[in-house]
Amino acid sequence: MKRFPITQGVPGFKFSGIAAGIKKASIKDLGLITTDRPCPAAAVFTKNSVKAAPVLVCGKNIKNNLIQAVLVNSGNANACTGQQGIDDALATAAILSSKLNIEDKLVAPFSTGVIGVAFPTAKIIKHIPTLINNLSSKNAKDFAESIITTDTCIKTSSYKETFDNDCVKILGLAKGSGMIMPNMATMLAFIVTNISIEKKLLKSLLKEINEETFNRITVDGDMSTNDSVIVMSSNLTKTTVTKKGSKAYNTFKKMLHLVMKELSVMIVKDGEGATKLINIIVEKAKTDADAKKAAMQVANSSLVKTAFFGEDFNWGRILGALGSSGAAFDMNRVNLLFNTIPAVQNGQGIKENITKLKKTVKNKEITLLIDLNNGSKNCMVTTCDLSYEYVRINADYTT
Amino acid sequence: MKRFPITQGVPGFKFSGIAAGIKKASIKDLGLITTDRPCPAAAVFTKNSVKAAPVLVCGKNIKNNLIQAVLVNSGNANACTGQQGIDDALATAAILSSKLNIEDKLVAPFSTGVIGVAFPTAKIIKHIPTLINNLSSKNAKDFAESIITTDTCIKTSSYKETFDNDCVKILGLAKGSGMIMPNMATMLAFIVTNISIEKKLLKSLLKEINEETFNRITVDGDMSTNDSVIVMSSNLTKTTVTKKGSKAYNTFKKMLHLVMKELSVMIVKDGEGATKLINIIVEKAKTDADAKKAAMQVANSSLVKTAFFGEDFNWGRILGALGSSGAAFDMNRVNLLFNTIPAVQNGQGIKENITKLKKTVKNKEITLLIDLNNGSKNCMVTTCDLSYEYVRINADYTT
Repeated sequence: MKRFPITQGVPGFKFSGIAAGIKKASIKDLGLITTDRPCPAAAVFTKNSVKAAPVLVCGKNIKNNLIQAVLVNSGNANACTGQQGIDDALATAAILSSKLNIEDKLVAPFSTGVIGVAFPTAKIIKHIPTLINNLSSKNAKDFAESIITTDTCIKTSSYKETFDNDCVKILGLAKGSGMIMPNMATMLAFIVTNISIEKKLLKSLLKEINEETFNRITVDGDMSTNDSVIVMSSNLTKTTVTKKGSKAYNTFKKMLHLVMKELSVMIVKDGEGATKLINIIVEKAKTDADAKKAAMQVANSSLVKTAFFGEDFNWGRILGALGSSGAAFDMNRVNLLFNTIPAVQNGQGIKENITKLKKTVKNKEITLLIDLNNGSKNCMVTTCDLSYEYVRINADYTT
Repeated sequence: MKRFPITQGVPGFKFSGIAAGIKKASIKDLGLITTDRPCPAAAVFTKNSVKAAPVLVCGKNIKNNLIQAVLVNSGNANACTGQQGIDDALATAAILSSKLNIEDKLVAPFSTGVIGVAFPTAKIIKHIPTLINNLSSKNAKDFAESIITTDTCIKTSSYKETFDNDCVKILGLAKGSGMIMPNMATMLAFIVTNISIEKKLLKSLLKEINEETFNRITVDGDMSTNDSVIVMSSNLTKTTVTKKGSKAYNTFKKMLHLVMKELSVMIVKDGEGATKLINIIVEKAKTDADAKKAAMQVANSSLVKTAFFGEDFNWGRILGALGSSGAAFDMNRVNLLFNTIPAVQNGQGIKENITKLKKTVKNKEITLLIDLNNGSKNCMVTTCDLSYEYVRINADYTT
């Protein structure tokens, strides 16, 4: 598997990203991805019961697992906008589909930005012709720029691999947990590939890998109204992936996993105010659910996150978080290791390692291994610390 | 119901609080409450599965609902200390009981402070004679001082009421969510009364009122290994409360509720870095569980808490937190009010009130009313905002 420059694109896809005046002047805020014909697509959305209008519309349109255009705007989330918001999302999608001469339901709309503010439908409609004119297989970077909000950088991941004389490419473009006033964090990811794959298979792969990647990251435990991940395949390779376990399936699965894993970690690294990347690995839990509960409780504990910010290997807070997670374990059998250095054995601190531990928590990336010693199930969650900057970002923007 | 100075004490109880050298020199860190004979007592403890040694010992000793002495130290939590910690808690209780000439199991031990550090058994045992010598009905303030950690003030609540020619008194002493390096927040509350009450009734009252008071506050959603609330009655009034619904029962219930409510709110007000007290009232939820889930999710959302710190009536974040709570509701029927000023009606923002809302969120105390419009169940949770100071307190102390 090799990386490739995103300007080289992926066969079958065109990208565009322009400034439509939704955000401040001349900042890109409207993006488009198109394919020449309807292509297999699958998506997963926020489990928040308060869903933004585009999530509702996109969720409906993608039911047939066929999409031909992805329309994204940043600067306005079209969330908490009622029936008007839904009408607005439908209206922009309808204009786009008529200009592209495709069916309305082949458009997947996404939005991120301010919540509860009327959708800038007119601005978007006005700029759709320019957006279409700028479509090019080389413009993935423009698209990546158009979807970010207060992200400090664009987030892309691209890999290619040869099989059966075909060059299979996969390209992921994401935006992360930067805040946009006065909205909550929103995560969007768009993944395109030229592989020929049966659409149901694409859907099950996305679900499976999403659970291991985007569903294993957390910045502050809050769930957005707009979080979405979509994957589309232009079906241009000779070999078609039709069944699980085939060589092509396994290779593609590895590629998709890598792209989604890289994008999800980029989102945490660019988390609001994050100064450290923290991998939390729970091992030997009784059940999968226990492993995830334990890892998530530790990852979302404000006390644990501030300790990491303070470069403190505060195992007491970690045990406290574990104890409140609901996972089954005996505290007298728990082991904790920071970057492989043992800090707790059988529930009690190891004094001899204090100097080493003090040093290792100064690293920018820390792996905390939690051995529950109570079974065989594991789970890894990636998170970041909780800093002054998080508070500043989230307190200083006002409505 | 009238307040009374805590130096006046409560018939049947003696208090003591001294410096035993567990914390820095000359700071009180060892406290004692005794009664002349075994008295009805009930307690509730942290639900964290990682329980400190004193919680385990106290939980066992209080099973008969009779206690004659409460021994508390601050500066060391005796948590994550294994079997040695339990032996230490038992040893100090045994020395105290022999000096007081009472049974071991009549001692209720409590600890708060550093986690995972060997218990200072020798220091405590050495100071028990002085601790006993200082016992006086007037020394409740000494006791209150001896239990605090980084609390910025002592927390007391005292009320008296006359019925059947008896003066019924109730006195509560608590410590809150101040941090002690490198421990997590611990909450302890001690409540004494002279009322004659059947012990099973005292237990059920404590449980019921605890659910409405201490279980309705949250600073950062983290649960300590040591949290405990104990209530004891010296049974010195002529009237004995023997059944629910009686006049004496109702009056006492009101008094106990008031004391527990006041103490719990004091703890939030003195929460780490708190600049604002936030009352979150969820109304018209479908079930009691939904009402509590919704209120707790909003109260523990870092995004909501930082918005309050930033004096931002960020209703988008509140709707987002509600949506991820799991409570049943239709976002298009939700109303939100900040200090009675409507911000959201039927899921959408009310523009006309922006100026008023901007002003009201500058208050030190804010009541957020969330009307789910989906039933008849209510729940109120009290919390505080999330400030730079919270991060400083929790990041700057190191092991």
